[in-house]
Amino acid sequence: MASYAIGVDFGTGSGRAVLVDVADGRQLATAVSEYSHGVIDVALPVPGPAIVLPPDWALQDPEDYLRVLSETIPAVVRASGVDAAQVVGVGIDVTACTMLPVRADGTPLAVLPEFRTEPHAWVKLWKHHAAQPEADLINTLARATGQPWLDRYGGRISSEWFFSKALQILREAPAVYAAADRLIEAADWIVWRLTGVETRNACTAGYKALWSKRDGFPDRSFFAALDPGLAGIVDEKMSRALGFAGERAGGLSAEAAAWTGLPVGTAVAIANVDAHVAVPAATVVEAGRMVMIMGTSTCHMVLSADEHAVPGMCGHVEDGIIPGFFGYEAGQSAVGDHFAWFVENAVPEAYGREASERGLGIHQLLEEKAARLRPGESGLLALDWWNGNRSVLVDAALGGLLVGATLATLPEEIYRALIEATAFGTRVIIETFEAHGVPVREIVACGGLADKSPLTLQIYADITGRPFRLSASDQTPALGSAMFGAVAAGAAAGGHATIEAASAAMARLQDRVYEPDAGNHAVYDRLHREYVRLHDYFGRGENDVMKVLRALRTDARAVGSTAGR
Amino acid sequence: MASYAIGVDFGTGSGRAVLVDVADGRQLATAVSEYSHGVIDVALPVPGPAIVLPPDWALQDPEDYLRVLSETIPAVVRASGVDAAQVVGVGIDVTACTMLPVRADGTPLAVLPEFRTEPHAWVKLWKHHAAQPEADLINTLARATGQPWLDRYGGRISSEWFFSKALQILREAPAVYAAADRLIEAADWIVWRLTGVETRNACTAGYKALWSKRDGFPDRSFFAALDPGLAGIVDEKMSRALGFAGERAGGLSAEAAAWTGLPVGTAVAIANVDAHVAVPAATVVEAGRMVMIMGTSTCHMVLSADEHAVPGMCGHVEDGIIPGFFGYEAGQSAVGDHFAWFVENAVPEAYGREASERGLGIHQLLEEKAARLRPGESGLLALDWWNGNRSVLVDAALGGLLVGATLATLPEEIYRALIEATAFGTRVIIETFEAHGVPVREIVACGGLADKSPLTLQIYADITGRPFRLSASDQTPALGSAMFGAVAAGAAAGGHATIEAASAAMARLQDRVYEPDAGNHAVYDRLHREYVRLHDYFGRGENDVMKVLRALRTDARAVGSTAGR
Repeated sequence: MASYAIGVDFGTGSGRAVLVDVADGRQLATAVSEYSHGVIDVALPVPGPAIVLPPDWALQDPEDYLRVLSETIPAVVRASGVDAAQVVGVGIDVTACTMLPVRADGTPLAVLPEFRTEPHAWVKLWKHHAAQPEADLINTLARATGQPWLDRYGGRISSEWFFSKALQILREAPAVYAAADRLIEAADWIVWRLTGVETRNACTAGYKALWSKRDGFPDRSFFAALDPGLAGIVDEKMSRALGFAGERAGGLSAEAAAWTGLPVGTAVAIANVDAHVAVPAATVVEAGRMVMIMGTSTCHMVLSADEHAVPGMCGHVEDGIIPGFFGYEAGQSAVGDHFAWFVENAVPEAYGREASERGLGIHQLLEEKAARLRPGESGLLALDWWNGNRSVLVDAALGGLLVGATLATLPEEIYRALIEATAFGTRVIIETFEAHGVPVREIVACGGLADKSPLTLQIYADITGRPFRLSASDQTPALGSAMFGAVAAGAAAGGHATIEAASAAMARLQDRVYEPDAGNHAVYDRLHREYVRLHDYFGRGENDVMKVLRALRTDARAVGSTAGR
Repeated sequence: MASYAIGVDFGTGSGRAVLVDVADGRQLATAVSEYSHGVIDVALPVPGPAIVLPPDWALQDPEDYLRVLSETIPAVVRASGVDAAQVVGVGIDVTACTMLPVRADGTPLAVLPEFRTEPHAWVKLWKHHAAQPEADLINTLARATGQPWLDRYGGRISSEWFFSKALQILREAPAVYAAADRLIEAADWIVWRLTGVETRNACTAGYKALWSKRDGFPDRSFFAALDPGLAGIVDEKMSRALGFAGERAGGLSAEAAAWTGLPVGTAVAIANVDAHVAVPAATVVEAGRMVMIMGTSTCHMVLSADEHAVPGMCGHVEDGIIPGFFGYEAGQSAVGDHFAWFVENAVPEAYGREASERGLGIHQLLEEKAARLRPGESGLLALDWWNGNRSVLVDAALGGLLVGATLATLPEEIYRALIEATAFGTRVIIETFEAHGVPVREIVACGGLADKSPLTLQIYADITGRPFRLSASDQTPALGSAMFGAVAAGAAAGGHATIEAASAAMARLQDRVYEPDAGNHAVYDRLHREYVRLHDYFGRGENDVMKVLRALRTDARAVGSTAGR
């Protein structure tokens, strides 16, 4: 009898489920559920007087996640026509670090009336960047006290990470911190809702919460030095018992079985991260082949049998992606988001008219025009820091830069320059990995942006000088979660024994290979030298104008808010 | 009996005439004539196969200028209702250096069938920037041979100037150079058409052709060293006999009287430059008060009784603006053009919709939104070099820069940053003048941009820390030309004896004073330090990325054209 697995991928704006055949990865059905409140970055979606969020905040509503489960899982079962009893396992993945404060029974503080109007009670989305002062403090103290874990994270941790966000809650909303029996990754919280059992996954613990297999979490004394109130955070509000990718978190609870229509007891995998589950789903279970998940932001993942300290990376975690390997992660914090910003804010009316007359999307039109340009022809160069720089500078307070514009500069030239900038950023990441012992021979891309833009992939191949291939699935993370669901079920129950076996059976690449063009690569080599020079000048402290501008912006807004505008 | 004067101002896109009362400057009528071919920067407007212009070219059609005379002068006489016989004098001003090759009888080569399809036969507009290699050669040779005149031009001459353009003709189109009996400023050529007599004005000779009252033109040996073919340019194709502002070039010829409807013999003033005629029309006939003509580009003019070498300025000329003073000129090559580029290429559809729904122009809408921002609030800083930098770097090959953009950056924030960038550029000019002995206490602005944008003037006042006032006339250069026409007629004929007398009688300021706000000025001081640092880093050779980008762009286009795209 055939067996099936379901993966649910919780992205930034929506959740999507796939139902796949465990034997060959064939995708029988998909379903998408948009979050009703999306990214909450202006004001809380509550009745009454507006509760306006400060700059750099990004929240979500935990109930949106449960709605994804109850809408998409029944939808894929129905659409595929399979018997729910043939679904042997479920896996989920979520953006990270996306975390929330909850009660001991798992109830999010955000749904309680007494905390509903308190922004710190809501889910802090990965791209909540308002905990930069807390990240700065953690970094300063870690360097000053020689914390051994700092090297694993490229020498610097991010405002996006778990303890930055937790410390922000403690400092700005001590009542929320006190009322939070648990501080938990959204991924683990969703698995808790599915199984009725609280588990914690080693992946987010390793990549976002400073945990390692060898050393565990940082010492209590380190947390106490950050803030006495934070001293007991691990033992009081987290857990030292961690599950690994592919392990079974539990069986589906009766309550969750009712939501989803799957049998009680169906295997549910330990939670995972969207980017990380994509790696085996993109056929990568070995060293030397980087996976890039290209969407609103980009995550870069590469495996190595050995441990290396690579400066400026998001981190490396033993067994963090594929058991038996050190999994290295890097990232760029604005990629698709960057191009979306451009289209929304900087593309003139005439282009919208042309696109609609020709029945094209605006990105399609820009891509068509940008594709006619040769490398170097725009005369432009950009630093892709519209949302800061995650790797290799790990600095959310950096800003974008565009140089070389003239009165003849056209929108498609800027568009291409922004694409190129993200590719130069990726090249910096690859070259930093290689300089520190982690080779990258080939790249497998997946994600919405990779699927939609052949021009982007060719530019990336030309700039990095490496072949790019594409995952065959248009739902790579969801497929990866389904694969881990199959592993959680185990071979005996119709799943797979290992993630390697699941990857070999269920993952595919597209045939097309984007090979670097030698002539284009030569021009881009020249531009890359200029990119790196600007990158280092503005990014490594020689000219801190981006920081000055950000500080002046903050000051100006503060005047604005006290003036009651 | 009342007497009147007519001034005709030839701008970049159109010519405009005013008819004013000599007694008090009251404007009785104005008329505008758009050039039928405008700025020719894509292809020559001739039948047959397209003759495409290379990058950085900008031409005009000389016949467009004559059409302005024959359309606007009769129009203002008619509209004012005055008797043509009461018009005592005519003055004209033109952009500079705007020059053309002509026959001995004044016929432009561009109208001759054998040269009609040769781009070098047409008028080279001031903003023709394709003679940069020639400017570079002139600068290199001048430095190497210690030319004494180089200091008068801030140590560097521009690709826009007369000998850069003339040398480009000689090198790229020797047949045109050989056929040109005269190489002449468009201003002098128009006066020639009006009077039937070739005269040359000292203003363009001094500011654009390296002439000075004390030393005349550069030596023949210098021209010979540039190119043997150029050795005799001054004596063969120009003139050492120069007329000064306010002098009578001649009387209106019978032919020109027929075009214009004015009496034969009406006094015509020596030709002048649009920016320079505006100075006395903006009430400035003394030291310490700078006049800024703010339009597509900005010219800055200030007088001093003494001679000072000010690095990076366009030049200073004794008696060049007002007799008895050294007239100092600086410039910014893209100001209104810069904002127009932004509106055309980078303002999204939604803004166009909002503007048209509310019955506003798009600049008005952006100004309204930008005016709500505080200094520093955009988080952005720009270098205003979209069309290179005229002062104080004198480098047309520099490019624009924008730093600090985030995913939350809005169009009005960029718009404001571009306005601020041009104001920081003006502040660099003012501070350089003052550092070298030429004080600037107050600014009088005029020109289309100054008239239309109170926000711009307030930002300029806040950034420079100096009060800005506005010329009362909305046609300041044309008024200035009319004033010089009145001086050319002389007091006995109903005009004025001197330009000082004409200015006292005919020029006015608006009542409103834009005073700098101390709080804004303090924030802008901080931003100005960052501006200057970027200005020097990218503009003075430490990081030549803008040059590299321009060279790569040229290379890419060359590949493009050989590939026959």
